[in-house]
Amino acid sequence: MNNNRIASLVEKMTLHEKIAQLIQLATPFYKGATNGGQITGPMAELGVNDEDIVNSGSVLGASGAKEVKSIQEMHLKENRHGIPLLMMADIVHGYKTIFPVPLAIGCSWDLEAAEKSAEVAAREASVSGVHVTFAPMVDLVRDPRWGRVMESTGEDPYLNSEFARAFVRGFQGDNLTEDKDRVAACVKHFAAYGAAEAGRDYNTVDMSERQLRESYLPAYKAALDEGCEMVMTSFNSIEGIPATGNKWLMRDILREEMGFNGVLISDWGAVKEQIPHGVVRNEKEAAEKSIQAGVDIEMMTACYIKNLETLVKEGKVEEQIIDEGVYRILELKEKLGLFENPHRGADEEREKEVILSESHRKAAYDLAVKSTVLLKNEGALPLNNQKKIALIGPFAKSGDILGAWSWMGSHEEAVSLYEGMHKKVSAENLLTAKGCDIETGSEEMMNEAIAIGKEADIIVLAIGEESGMSGEARCRADIRLPEIQLELLSKMKQLGKQVVVVLFNGRPLDLTGMEGQADAILEAWFPGTEGGNALADLLFGDVNPSGKLSMSFPYTLGQVPIYYNNYNTGRPKNAAVDEYVSKYLDIPNEPLYPFGYGLSYTNYKYSDLSVSSSVMTLDQPLIVTVNVTNTGELAGDEVVQLYVRDMVGEVIRPLKELKAFEKVTLTPGETKTIEFTLSEEQLRYHHRDLSYTSDAGEFTIFVGPNSRDVSSATFELTK
Amino acid sequence: MNNNRIASLVEKMTLHEKIAQLIQLATPFYKGATNGGQITGPMAELGVNDEDIVNSGSVLGASGAKEVKSIQEMHLKENRHGIPLLMMADIVHGYKTIFPVPLAIGCSWDLEAAEKSAEVAAREASVSGVHVTFAPMVDLVRDPRWGRVMESTGEDPYLNSEFARAFVRGFQGDNLTEDKDRVAACVKHFAAYGAAEAGRDYNTVDMSERQLRESYLPAYKAALDEGCEMVMTSFNSIEGIPATGNKWLMRDILREEMGFNGVLISDWGAVKEQIPHGVVRNEKEAAEKSIQAGVDIEMMTACYIKNLETLVKEGKVEEQIIDEGVYRILELKEKLGLFENPHRGADEEREKEVILSESHRKAAYDLAVKSTVLLKNEGALPLNNQKKIALIGPFAKSGDILGAWSWMGSHEEAVSLYEGMHKKVSAENLLTAKGCDIETGSEEMMNEAIAIGKEADIIVLAIGEESGMSGEARCRADIRLPEIQLELLSKMKQLGKQVVVVLFNGRPLDLTGMEGQADAILEAWFPGTEGGNALADLLFGDVNPSGKLSMSFPYTLGQVPIYYNNYNTGRPKNAAVDEYVSKYLDIPNEPLYPFGYGLSYTNYKYSDLSVSSSVMTLDQPLIVTVNVTNTGELAGDEVVQLYVRDMVGEVIRPLKELKAFEKVTLTPGETKTIEFTLSEEQLRYHHRDLSYTSDAGEFTIFVGPNSRDVSSATFELTK
Repeated sequence: MNNNRIASLVEKMTLHEKIAQLIQLATPFYKGATNGGQITGPMAELGVNDEDIVNSGSVLGASGAKEVKSIQEMHLKENRHGIPLLMMADIVHGYKTIFPVPLAIGCSWDLEAAEKSAEVAAREASVSGVHVTFAPMVDLVRDPRWGRVMESTGEDPYLNSEFARAFVRGFQGDNLTEDKDRVAACVKHFAAYGAAEAGRDYNTVDMSERQLRESYLPAYKAALDEGCEMVMTSFNSIEGIPATGNKWLMRDILREEMGFNGVLISDWGAVKEQIPHGVVRNEKEAAEKSIQAGVDIEMMTACYIKNLETLVKEGKVEEQIIDEGVYRILELKEKLGLFENPHRGADEEREKEVILSESHRKAAYDLAVKSTVLLKNEGALPLNNQKKIALIGPFAKSGDILGAWSWMGSHEEAVSLYEGMHKKVSAENLLTAKGCDIETGSEEMMNEAIAIGKEADIIVLAIGEESGMSGEARCRADIRLPEIQLELLSKMKQLGKQVVVVLFNGRPLDLTGMEGQADAILEAWFPGTEGGNALADLLFGDVNPSGKLSMSFPYTLGQVPIYYNNYNTGRPKNAAVDEYVSKYLDIPNEPLYPFGYGLSYTNYKYSDLSVSSSVMTLDQPLIVTVNVTNTGELAGDEVVQLYVRDMVGEVIRPLKELKAFEKVTLTPGETKTIEFTLSEEQLRYHHRDLSYTSDAGEFTIFVGPNSRDVSSATFELTK
Repeated sequence: MNNNRIASLVEKMTLHEKIAQLIQLATPFYKGATNGGQITGPMAELGVNDEDIVNSGSVLGASGAKEVKSIQEMHLKENRHGIPLLMMADIVHGYKTIFPVPLAIGCSWDLEAAEKSAEVAAREASVSGVHVTFAPMVDLVRDPRWGRVMESTGEDPYLNSEFARAFVRGFQGDNLTEDKDRVAACVKHFAAYGAAEAGRDYNTVDMSERQLRESYLPAYKAALDEGCEMVMTSFNSIEGIPATGNKWLMRDILREEMGFNGVLISDWGAVKEQIPHGVVRNEKEAAEKSIQAGVDIEMMTACYIKNLETLVKEGKVEEQIIDEGVYRILELKEKLGLFENPHRGADEEREKEVILSESHRKAAYDLAVKSTVLLKNEGALPLNNQKKIALIGPFAKSGDILGAWSWMGSHEEAVSLYEGMHKKVSAENLLTAKGCDIETGSEEMMNEAIAIGKEADIIVLAIGEESGMSGEARCRADIRLPEIQLELLSKMKQLGKQVVVVLFNGRPLDLTGMEGQADAILEAWFPGTEGGNALADLLFGDVNPSGKLSMSFPYTLGQVPIYYNNYNTGRPKNAAVDEYVSKYLDIPNEPLYPFGYGLSYTNYKYSDLSVSSSVMTLDQPLIVTVNVTNTGELAGDEVVQLYVRDMVGEVIRPLKELKAFEKVTLTPGETKTIEFTLSEEQLRYHHRDLSYTSDAGEFTIFVGPNSRDVSSATFELTK
């Protein structure tokens, strides 16, 4: 506790006051809030009293400069130490200017654009009174059934790590104290929440410690290395113990190994949820486990406030542990400048100016363009705006294109696909019909769509999952498109015209029954506020698609979990041998669309892959170069990807691991030489004894436009 | 090395002779075999020479007294020490008299019948010259995509352990030396082969060590505790290292902890497969890893024979390690009495007498009856043999009812369903048609079935997966019935008659599109040689179904992996709360048919569950009693199941764990009191530090006819 001011403040606080700093309550608990004090239902059952609230440390979900300032003012009048409240909220992919969902952002492979999105979100949130955002979520994901894959940047530890850093930079900036347009970031969910068994949210996580360290921990670590101020625990158990009471995970790994000194907050209700997990008998034991594990803030349950005092008196919890938590919370408040200016960025005038400003919308448009992935194109795209186009489907005119975790965003402010296209096509050339709803329909709707389709030269079908089909607790056992939409596609296809599918969804889908019928598929994900404008520009070729998948599309659900960086097995399937090899009888082992995959309206040729030396040493990195040529007729951006395989490891190694990538812009006919530096450090991994080191020996380098279509070269690491 | 005779024999052997004992080759390598010496293809590529073969220790796949004796005689003429060959083969669920597949045997919950099946298999194999069988396979399974679930007894560690013991007793008997009608057992696949990721055979296995110990290791341990002579390694990796070269797994766990002193054999080619696994560079390194890990016999690759001599000379492998392996192999040969009688049970006369004898067929019939599970019955069963019955489907007259791993069985000797039924019904009352093949069909076939169906009073539909759709390397990404068979079912249902489905399959299926259309479902699995007779008796009510599922039937594939003994999570789904709980949007969390489930033609009522005390102490076990009454009009066997839940563990505990079961026969109206003893020892599990102990505190006992429909009581363990 090096900060004397904070330390002496902690000293002055009573034990109850200190414990109250550790509780986080929702807005309705606070005077000054709209509906403040109207505590009913489960909230009332918490049983916190006025004294608890007056001394509480942070607020969940407050936003809007006026309300936040009012809460803070009322609070400061009553808090005897004048300790301001920390205002926290879920600002995941934009505040009111909504960006594509994070899984889509992952497909941009554009760290600057991602950083920009977080910066914009931070500015809008900050002027609205938010101090801390519960983002970035950096959980590695391999199972598209899980609804929260939409909130992750995907299946790769390296790509996730790079995005984790970019988001933290964007949210926090360089100087959180000075720069009032930034908010503190809270990386989540520590740890391995994305590995919920059978893709069912909150379900058990089980894996070896080596797997945890190899695949799941790197992105959290990257966020911390970038200076992320806070960490949130995950709902799941790890090694049989819920993360929120897991001392080994939080004390040994997070604090000791990773050196995290910031505030650790539980996820919503997770302290108390140790009871249904079956590792504690009651709230008192739950409080003891979590505080011992180093969880500073308890979100939305009252185990701490009701029990820590007794636990301290009984000698089961040292007051010092509580002091440390309080110290960390107060230090964060100080870092955010709240003692000097408890309202920080909150500003009702600037709210009007900043939120949904032109430049913010421009950033959202930019990222929507970059996040969209062209999965298939049999000559159907780009569209010709002189042709008659039928825009059909439940997403044709829908504003439900923001995706989950966009609570402040509104459908009305979102540019629908129809609106976007209509800017380019006259009304008489842009016919439209809904065809069906997301999961239901009628003959009438279908017939209307058929009639419209018949009139058109080409059909654009806007279909997918509504935003409520992904996100927290929104898991699907069947990840195909709803039947009625597949029927709509069939009906359209039967008209004998080209059908371009624009897909809206928050997870990789099983495209069985769909992929074969579409002449083109543009994966729009949930593109955000500017979705319609971005998609229209992409569809008509005003901009060239450049997104690349950050998560594999399975051939069918039967392959799940599927991810590119898997292991070889002892009996790999290959062309030469088909019996007694690792395979399915009914489908290929390969996903439908692999990690890193995405098409463009132009073509890129990769050539002259070369490595500066056949030998890498500890202090002599390799230079890997490759020429990439735009052989088509349109300018475009290409994401050049470099993968490595350690041919012989002490433990089994992935078939490919992404180690570097570069996005390059190429005009027609242009060739650029892309240069990557590869050093021994990038070849390290956790060995049998968990030591983090590299193996001398042979390695293969793969370079290409995705994880499948690669050229290769080899080198040897000598030590 | 306490056996002086063997020790001194080892002493006399040259290093090359010793290493040759460690190789296992297939029959064609041996003079005296039919086609002996005709080595081509991959076998020729092994590069073993005559001297290697003459000194080799064991033979894979030899059977038939005549051939085996001939091989052994030729061998002993040339082997200078007169060391006989060990004859090993895959006798998994019968030799020529084929029993139901092990997954079905698991559904019998009948340990005596299971033991009997192994005894019969041992007798037939032994008279045919086999000394060791590669069974039992006791891999715990949770993913029905994996083709080898048919070879396991299911998803429960306790049930698997009990069956492991029963099979070992049946194969080995009490005195392997004296009892020539027995064979040595080889438990497999060590370890956790059943957890292949995404249900794809040979795929990576990853789990925490605690999970490995809690769920996967117990059944192997049980087999060893029962005296199982041999262990086979698994193909998969564990903790990143292929089992076949995994020193921690084999030396620390198998030999040190479990105290196994017998012969450890690799699975087919698994020593060399460490190369594609990517943990060794070449055969020499593969040999070194495996011998250091304690693998005694290398099956069907030649890494040992080609490299161990050099490795010993280079000081990389101590000769002592090789000596120990040879010692164990020779000791097993001695235990089998091969030095005295190298032909052991092999007897061409007895072969004729014993194989497929009436008593063996009777045992197969008995187990087929007990293994069949009645999944649904809306008053359609039992059949009335005075009615006109249409037996339709690809399995109506098929002999393909033996299942995988029945290489010596023949379809011709199997009693088809038609044959079985025909014994009870006159030809004019038993119409039959195929309807379709397994995955294909024709209008003609379908029309014939429809015509036949129209004529009948009731339809029995014999459908399912052919035996080649499960078993090794036979994984399916889609575990529904093939489309054509679902179509056949629909067509039959449209005739407006009751449809009884008899299912043939080697895995739990996704019954979407099927379950709702059937008036009754009888799960026959692959019932073996006597299948038709057993099924006919069950269908007509001459015997009452009593099988209970040993593996959950998922609601759909989207739930996989699914198993009853899962954990509660922090947000369990229950009636009161449906938002933000662990669930799927589109299907329930529960399987279609849970573990332990199976119907009967009668009904059983459970009542008066009581526990002898509300407190259990370390030395005072509890007595749990329950009354079970047959309230119907037919006699029947019921499997009464007892589960326990540790309400608060140091680590998360399963919602239910099977701890005991009893099969009871009840005549109509009869009530029996079932008594279970439950002691502290049964409540132990592996804690955070892997210590194996119990928790003081509250427990719940559940008793019922399956893992879902239970009564409960509670008690406290005090320590």
